[in-house]
Order: sequence, then structure tokens, then C-alpha cells
Amino acid sequence: MATFTHHHHGALLKTPLSGRARIPGSKSRPGPFRVRMSLQETGPSLAVVGVTGAVGQEFLSVLQDRDFPFRSIKMLASKRSAGQNLNFLGQNYVVEELTRDSFDDVDIALFSAGGSISKEFGPLAVESGTIVVDNSSAFRMQKGVPLVVPEVNPEAMEGIKVGRGKGALIANPNCSTIICLMAATPLHRHSKVLRMVVSTYQAASGAGAAAMRELEQQTHEVLEGKPPTCKIFQRQYAFNLFSHNSAVLPNGYNEEEMKLVKETRKIWNDTDVKVTATCIRVPVMRAHAESINLQFENPLDEDTARDILKKAPGLVIIDDRTSNNFPTPLEVSNKDDVAVGRIRRDVSQEGNYGLDIFVCGDQIRKGAALNAVQIAEMLL
Amino acid sequence: MATFTHHHHGALLKTPLSGRARIPGSKSRPGPFRVRMSLQETGPSLAVVGVTGAVGQEFLSVLQDRDFPFRSIKMLASKRSAGQNLNFLGQNYVVEELTRDSFDDVDIALFSAGGSISKEFGPLAVESGTIVVDNSSAFRMQKGVPLVVPEVNPEAMEGIKVGRGKGALIANPNCSTIICLMAATPLHRHSKVLRMVVSTYQAASGAGAAAMRELEQQTHEVLEGKPPTCKIFQRQYAFNLFSHNSAVLPNGYNEEEMKLVKETRKIWNDTDVKVTATCIRVPVMRAHAESINLQFENPLDEDTARDILKKAPGLVIIDDRTSNNFPTPLEVSNKDDVAVGRIRRDVSQEGNYGLDIFVCGDQIRKGAALNAVQIAEMLL
Repeated sequence: MATFTHHHHGALLKTPLSGRARIPGSKSRPGPFRVRMSLQETGPSLAVVGVTGAVGQEFLSVLQDRDFPFRSIKMLASKRSAGQNLNFLGQNYVVEELTRDSFDDVDIALFSAGGSISKEFGPLAVESGTIVVDNSSAFRMQKGVPLVVPEVNPEAMEGIKVGRGKGALIANPNCSTIICLMAATPLHRHSKVLRMVVSTYQAASGAGAAAMRELEQQTHEVLEGKPPTCKIFQRQYAFNLFSHNSAVLPNGYNEEEMKLVKETRKIWNDTDVKVTATCIRVPVMRAHAESINLQFENPLDEDTARDILKKAPGLVIIDDRTSNNFPTPLEVSNKDDVAVGRIRRDVSQEGNYGLDIFVCGDQIRKGAALNAVQIAEMLL
Repeated sequence: MATFTHHHHGALLKTPLSGRARIPGSKSRPGPFRVRMSLQETGPSLAVVGVTGAVGQEFLSVLQDRDFPFRSIKMLASKRSAGQNLNFLGQNYVVEELTRDSFDDVDIALFSAGGSISKEFGPLAVESGTIVVDNSSAFRMQKGVPLVVPEVNPEAMEGIKVGRGKGALIANPNCSTIICLMAATPLHRHSKVLRMVVSTYQAASGAGAAAMRELEQQTHEVLEGKPPTCKIFQRQYAFNLFSHNSAVLPNGYNEEEMKLVKETRKIWNDTDVKVTATCIRVPVMRAHAESINLQFENPLDEDTARDILKKAPGLVIIDDRTSNNFPTPLEVSNKDDVAVGRIRRDVSQEGNYGLDIFVCGDQIRKGAALNAVQIAEMLL
């Protein structure tokens, strides 16, 4: 029987590169407490849509790690995956096929099964009184749908609670946006950001578990002198990098880049903020990095910025100039906190009106599953 | 007997990843012509300093590819490498130890053996009448030493020629600077660049052949679930990325970043241009990528920019939005031309005052050896 660890991944994903010991009870919680959690009769009824995907699996991992209370949980996926067995918190679950009736009696549904599934089943779930936390881009820019990073704009989802008998849609922002704004927002609250120039270094995981496997397979092949197998991406990914694989729009930006531009405006509730982004896929497994150049309305010196970032929730500073120790994707992999470093006055701007920072965050965790579960926590 | 291909590298470097068939005579030149070149009695006497390193080997490759005329060539390296045999253009050479007397009767010396070797032996070579093209950072910012990208500022080395009996120092810019300015300069000539925000994606080769081998070895190890061997870099490089390994200065920038800032000013002969850079090492073998955001004094629309870049020497445009085909490091590896794409109006700036571009260039070739040999060609 499969466990809910990434059993379907290749060898690489079990190595220290991305693997994490998921030993039950190893998180300082005694075993009996866990058992109580999974058997409790209070708490909402949950559903995870797309439970066999990379983010779906991480939903379970985060629910466990945070002792999220629930009285029941439905494991939903496509017909293809239905019937699989999952072990979660010591209990066996059978993956069910997602249908129109899946949401009867579900309080909170965590969706991560792609935009078209969200578009089809999200509104159906809401109709049956479910609060949907959707990880796809389907509803992010829709008016009236809160787009939430809990540390940044919890007020956007005010009034939406479990137990009021009303369904709702809440959108999880794009991974690059979440990771960027975790660091940029505390600074922005202190001295308004007028303009941001972002260049990303994005991991394979953003394209799903199959992309991670493809990177691993290609790397084996290239090391053996064989031509790389290209299925998910149209070109060699191992020892290479390329412009993000999302569609390029008429303005020359790809969809991923425009998400950073538009979602920032919505999350900050600031239609004036200027953002440009260049999104690049790099041969890294599961954490994104971002080089962010900031331009402020009022001066913000480096030391003040560092103090602000130190106090910011969900953020850790790694910024040791002497030992050249700064955030890396590997270091934040499987971690909740976003790491920020390379904090320095921008020499290309006058006085203290500019800063450069470098940010890394786990794409699957804070970039997706953790953020969604944090949203769900605010619903209780 | 060793050939001058990268015989000292591991298996990976012979694969399509970075390998290039170096079959004598395969470059559309008939064999006899090659033989004539290597036996000719005209042309300058050359020396290659650091001939066994990654750039040193590439010097030979570029000299061959460009049929650089010479009447003799000295292969110089450290004591450790002295005595090795090299085959170049069908002739056998023995690597000689670099000494004070190495430059007697040498017209042009191509140096790539690190800054301390350049500092010690560069001035000695100049004293004995040799023109030194130095790939290190030792003399780049020294007043009176031309810092040259032949397509950008050939005028900086005006008057320096072989045959005038006078030694001279000419500095090869840093690889990131060369690759950036190959694309930014043609635009700058048309509409002055006021400010540039650069984020780099730098290959292993910039840290030398040993770093490329370390990346290959680590990748093997990580795939096998073993801990990675870290000798050149202090942390895991395989499936990871990190802030450039050069020293971090008191202003928080690392040396690599400040090279981009300062060398741009010198090469453009423009003390006002504002540059900021974030330099990141990515797990790619031998070509750098750069995300460049440009701010202009006067409007420069996207179509005009594309026309300018199309006509620029040493540059190729890869910018197919429909098929999502843009420059990649792998594609420019072992190529002379720098590739530019993702050319688009910056949505974060008013009107046509801003552009975003993405550039890739072979770090060893245009970023080092090719640029130096092009400089040497101008000396004839």
C-alpha cells in the first residue's frame, strides 16, 4: 500500500535533495495525540482535489504537520487515479473519482488539479456550500474572489468562515507571487514600493511531479551521453535553463510573468504599483529563487529594511556576507519559511530609494500547499 | 598523447551538453590549408599563458577556428603542467613552465591563468615588448589599460599594433559584462541607457574546468543518493543555485556584480550610467544567461530595438513567442554569437522608455577566449 510520501517519484526525490523523513510522530507531537486528531469528531470535513499530484500530496503533508483539525477527509482525483490506496495519519483511504456529487457535506475543499478542473468543479462545490481554496489560476483575478497570502492580506477574506452554511471561492496566488510578496510586502508597508523588477529562477516542481521526474531522468541520460527524453518540456532541461513554459501573450510577457504583475496589484490593493518580471525555469527540483529590485516612494535604508524583514512572519533572513552564505533553493526545500538575503542598497538609485534582495521559497510548500492550508486555518 | 580537446574532463563534457566534434579539417577548410597556417613564416609569434585551463584550451580552439595567423606559438602553464604534450593543428607541443624569460620574442600573449599570475608576469611581458591580452581582472580598471569588447569599443585600443616594437596591456572584460554589453550596447548607441538592472544565471565554467567537473561529479552523487563532494564551492551545486562565489564587498555587492557596474562605465566611457546586478551561479556547464531590464533616456520601441539587434555584429536573435523559443545556455554553448530574445516593452515603465531582454552567451568563448582572440586580431 502506498504511503502519502512521494512514492511515485524516482530515486532522486528520496535523497537529501528533496526528501524529508516523514516519520509519524517525529514532529515532537506524541503519537496518541495524532491518533486523536485523525479520529476527532469536531473540525470541518475536508476534501483534497488532485490528491495524487505533487501539491495534493503536499496538502496532506502540511495538514499533518500543522495538526489541522478535521472530522473527515475525502481524497479526490481523476478517474485514472481513483481506487489507489493512501495512508494518511495511520488510516487507509481510497482515492475517489472527482464527480459533481463529491462535495456534498464537504466544508473545505483544497483544489490543486489544474485550471480546467477548478473551473468545472469549483463553482459546483461552492453551490453545495463548500469553501474552496483553489490553487489554480482559474479565479485569481476574478472580481470578488479573495486572492490571499495570509501573512500579507488576511483582511481580503474577512467574513468567510466555515459553519455559516455558505460556500465561497478563495484563490491561492501563483507560487512566484507568494514568494516575492512574502519579502516585498513588509518593506512595502513601511515605504511604498513604486516599482519592482523581478527575475525568477524557478524549479521543476512548478510544472508538477512529472516535470520533476523528467528533470531527474534527463540528468541521468545526459550524464550517460544519451539524448534527453523531452515530454513535459520541449527542450533539454538538465544542465540548461529556459524561459518559463507558459504561453507568451501579445505584449511579449508570458503568463507567469503577468501573474506577478497583476496578482501583486490585487493582493496589495494597489493599482499603481509597477512590476516587471522575467520568469526562467532552472534545473532545480522544488524551490524557487527570485532576484528582486525595489524602488521606494520614500527612503528606506538597508539596516531598517533588515530590521523589518527580521520581524516579518514566515520569513527567515540568511545574509552572511563574510562567509558568503545566502538563501539557496536547496536550503528552503521542504521548509515553511521563505528565506531572504543579499539585502543591499541599490547602487543604481539615488540615496536610499532602492534595494536589491534575493529570495528563496519552497514552491510546493509556501508557494502552494502551505499557503492554501494557512488560508483554510483562517476559515475555522 | 593528449589532444587539445578537453581530455581532462569527465564523461559529461564529451556529451552533446558541451562537447563539440573537433575533427581536423571539418570546418570547411581543406587540410593542406591548415597545415600551411601552422607552418607559415609570417604572422606574429604567440604565447598562451594558462594553456591547460578551460579558457587556455579554448584559446587554441578559437585560434584554429579563426585561422589566426602566427609564425610560432608557445604553450605556457604552471610548473605542475609543464612537460605535458599538446597537439595543435597537427603539430606536437610541449607545455613550458611560465618564467620571466618566457616572453622574449613573443609578439602577442594571451593570458588566462588568474589575476596573480597576470599581475606578476603581465608587466614583465610588456617590458619585453609583448602585447598582453589579459583575461583576468588584474588590470581591467587600471587607468590607461584599454578594456575592450571588439564589437563595442574597438577605438579604446587605437594605436596598439604588433610590429611597432612596443609592449602593451589590453584587458578582456569580465564574461558577464561582455555578454550583457553585446546586446545592450547597440540599443545604448541608439537611445542612451540611463539604468540597467541585471540578474545573471552563470555557468560552472566561470569558475574553471575543476568547477565543471565538480558539478558533474556532484550530480552523479546526488542522483545516487550520496552526499555531494564540495571542494570548489562550499555547498551543493547540483540541482541547486547560489549567490556568486566571489567576495562580498562592504556595500553588499559581490565582486562579480561590481564588475558589471564598473566595467560597463569604462567600456561605454560613461560615468553616469546606473547599473545594478545580482549574480547567481546556476547548475549549467558553460554558458551564462542574463535577464536585463533597461531604462532609456529617449523612447525606444520594441520593433526598432529588434531591428537594431538584428543588425548588430556577433548577435543572433532567438525570439519566437508562438513556439516559446528563446535563448538557452545549451543552445549557445560552443557558439561564437551571443543570443538575445524575450525582447519586449517593459510594462513597468511609461511609454517606450523601458525594455526587458534575455541574453545567453558562451562564457568560455565570447565571454573569454573568443573576445581575447578578436582583440588580438585587431593588433595585426
